[in-house]
Amino acid sequence: MTNPSQYPLMVVGTVAIDSVETPFGKRDRVFGGSASYFSYAASFFSPVELIAVVGEDFPAEYRKILEERPIGLEHLTVCPGKTFYWKGKYESDLNTAHTLDTQLNVLLEFKPKLQANREPEYLFLANIDPTLQLEVLNQVKRPKCKFVACDTMNFWIEGKPGELAKVLKRVDMVVVNDGEARLLAKEANLIKAGRKIQNLGPGTVIIKKGEHGALLFHEERFFSLPAYPLEDVFDPTGAGDTFAGGVMGYLTKTGDLDFDHFKQALAHGAIVASFTVENFGLDRLRTLRNSEIEERLNHFKELCHF
Amino acid sequence: MTNPSQYPLMVVGTVAIDSVETPFGKRDRVFGGSASYFSYAASFFSPVELIAVVGEDFPAEYRKILEERPIGLEHLTVCPGKTFYWKGKYESDLNTAHTLDTQLNVLLEFKPKLQANREPEYLFLANIDPTLQLEVLNQVKRPKCKFVACDTMNFWIEGKPGELAKVLKRVDMVVVNDGEARLLAKEANLIKAGRKIQNLGPGTVIIKKGEHGALLFHEERFFSLPAYPLEDVFDPTGAGDTFAGGVMGYLTKTGDLDFDHFKQALAHGAIVASFTVENFGLDRLRTLRNSEIEERLNHFKELCHF
Repeated sequence: MTNPSQYPLMVVGTVAIDSVETPFGKRDRVFGGSASYFSYAASFFSPVELIAVVGEDFPAEYRKILEERPIGLEHLTVCPGKTFYWKGKYESDLNTAHTLDTQLNVLLEFKPKLQANREPEYLFLANIDPTLQLEVLNQVKRPKCKFVACDTMNFWIEGKPGELAKVLKRVDMVVVNDGEARLLAKEANLIKAGRKIQNLGPGTVIIKKGEHGALLFHEERFFSLPAYPLEDVFDPTGAGDTFAGGVMGYLTKTGDLDFDHFKQALAHGAIVASFTVENFGLDRLRTLRNSEIEERLNHFKELCHF
Repeated sequence: MTNPSQYPLMVVGTVAIDSVETPFGKRDRVFGGSASYFSYAASFFSPVELIAVVGEDFPAEYRKILEERPIGLEHLTVCPGKTFYWKGKYESDLNTAHTLDTQLNVLLEFKPKLQANREPEYLFLANIDPTLQLEVLNQVKRPKCKFVACDTMNFWIEGKPGELAKVLKRVDMVVVNDGEARLLAKEANLIKAGRKIQNLGPGTVIIKKGEHGALLFHEERFFSLPAYPLEDVFDPTGAGDTFAGGVMGYLTKTGDLDFDHFKQALAHGAIVASFTVENFGLDRLRTLRNSEIEERLNHFKELCHF
C-alpha cells in the first residue's frame, strides 16, 4: 500500500465504461472516463491519486489496469448501481464525437470527499458538474495545495454558467478545447478568447486544438505548440484527458511553475496524447515506456523548431 | 528601367480590383489579385517580375503602388475591357470568404508570354486556370529555371482535374490550404493528404491552415509551423498570396533549397502574411519595413520554441 503522502497530484473526475465507434472499428464497453485517462497519463511522470465513483458492475480487470501504475485507488469508491456509461461515434474526420447514449448512473450520487490526510499539492478537476468542482475546492487547503486546474465542457458552459464562473475564479489554470474556449469567451478569435478567459480568473489558460496543437496563455506570456503529426488516428477518445494528465504530471514532477516549465509540460502532454489515439481506449498507453515518450519528444522538437 | 535579368523571381497570376466586407468595415474597389499580393510580399526579399493582365479601367494609382517596390511591370499588360473584379464578404470568424460577385473580364483573354530574355530561376504560378499554368510551363526552360511552384483552388481541383494533374507533375512545390489539400488528396488527415499530394508530383507541399499555421512536406521530411498569434485580423484577403510571396521571395534571396531554408521560408511567409491581414488590401504592407519583419520573426521564435 502506497502512503497517501506519496500522491502529490490528485484528480477528481469520472471513471466510465465507453462504447466507441470510429472509422477503424467498434469496441463495446471499453474502459474510459476523464479521470481514468488523466491518471494513467499523469502516472508516467508522477504518482497520482484518483477520486471517482464506479458502480457494482465495474469490472475487476479495469481496476487492475489502473493498478499497473502508481495510481492511488483508495478513493475509487464503489456505489450501488451501475458505472457511468458513454456511447459515441466519430465521423470520418475524427474531429467530432457524436454522443449516442449517456447514462450517468452512480455519477448522480457522486460526493467527492477529500480526507484530512490527503492534501495534494497539485489538483486537477476533470470534466464534471461545476457544482461538484466547487465542493472539492471548498475542501482544498490553500496555499498547501499550490496549483489547481480544471477542465469543463459546452454542456456546463451553457447549462451552469454561474457555478462555472465561481470555479474559474478559484483555479490557477483551465484546459479547454477551441470550441469550448470560443463559447466561454464569446469570441471567435482564439488569441482574444484565451486572454478573455484569463480575465475570468485563471492566470493560465490552455486551449487544445486537436490536430492543430495547443495554445498556452500564462500570465502575460503566450506559447503556441503544433500537434505531433499522426497519419493514423485510431480512436480520439481520451486524447484531451491524457493531454491534461501529461501536462499536470510533468508540472508535478518538476515542481516548477515558471513559463518554460509550462511550455515543456504542454509538449509532454501532446506527446502522451499522440500515443493515446494510436489505439482504442488505454490500449496504447498500457504498453508505453518513458523512453518512447522521450524519443518522440525529441523528434517533435525537430519537427517544429526553425 | 531595371534590367530584366534583375528579376530572378517571376509570378504569373491575377491583378484584380476587389470589393471586400469584413466585420470591421467595407471597402469598394481596393487593389487586389493573387499576383499583386504575391509580388508585393516577395519584393521584401527579392526583385520580382509580375506577369498579368489588367483592363483599361485599371487605376494609374494602383500601378504606382507596385512601382514603390522592385517589381517588374513591363508585362503587366493592359487589354481592352475591364480588370478582373472580385467581391467578397467574410463571416465573423474571418475564416471563410463568401464570393458575392466574380467578373473575369480581361482575364478571359490572358495568354501569358514569357519572352526569351526573361528566364527566371524561380517561378510562381499563382491561382489561375491550370490550362494557363501549363502554357507558362511550356515556355519555361529547365533546368535554368530551377524551382517552380504553384497555387490552385477548389474550383480547378473539381473543374479541371486532368489539367491540374499535368501541372502538378511538372512543378517542384504546390501551396494549398487545408480544405484544398483534403479535396485534392481525397483524404481527411492532413499529414496523409500532404504525402498523397507529393505522390502527385511536387517534392515539396505546403498546406496553409490559416489561424493554425502551416505544414511543410519536403521530400521525406516534415515541418509544422504555428501561426503568428493575432488578436485583430482586419481583412484576411491576400493572406495566402503574401504567405506564398514571402516563401518564394525568401527562397530566391538565399538561393538555397535545403530543408532548413524551406523552414525559414515558411516562417518568413507567415510573418509577412501576419502583417497583411492587419489592414485592408495592401495598406499594411505599404508601410512595412524589413526591420519589422525581422523583429516579429524573432518574437515568433520565442512563441513557439520549447
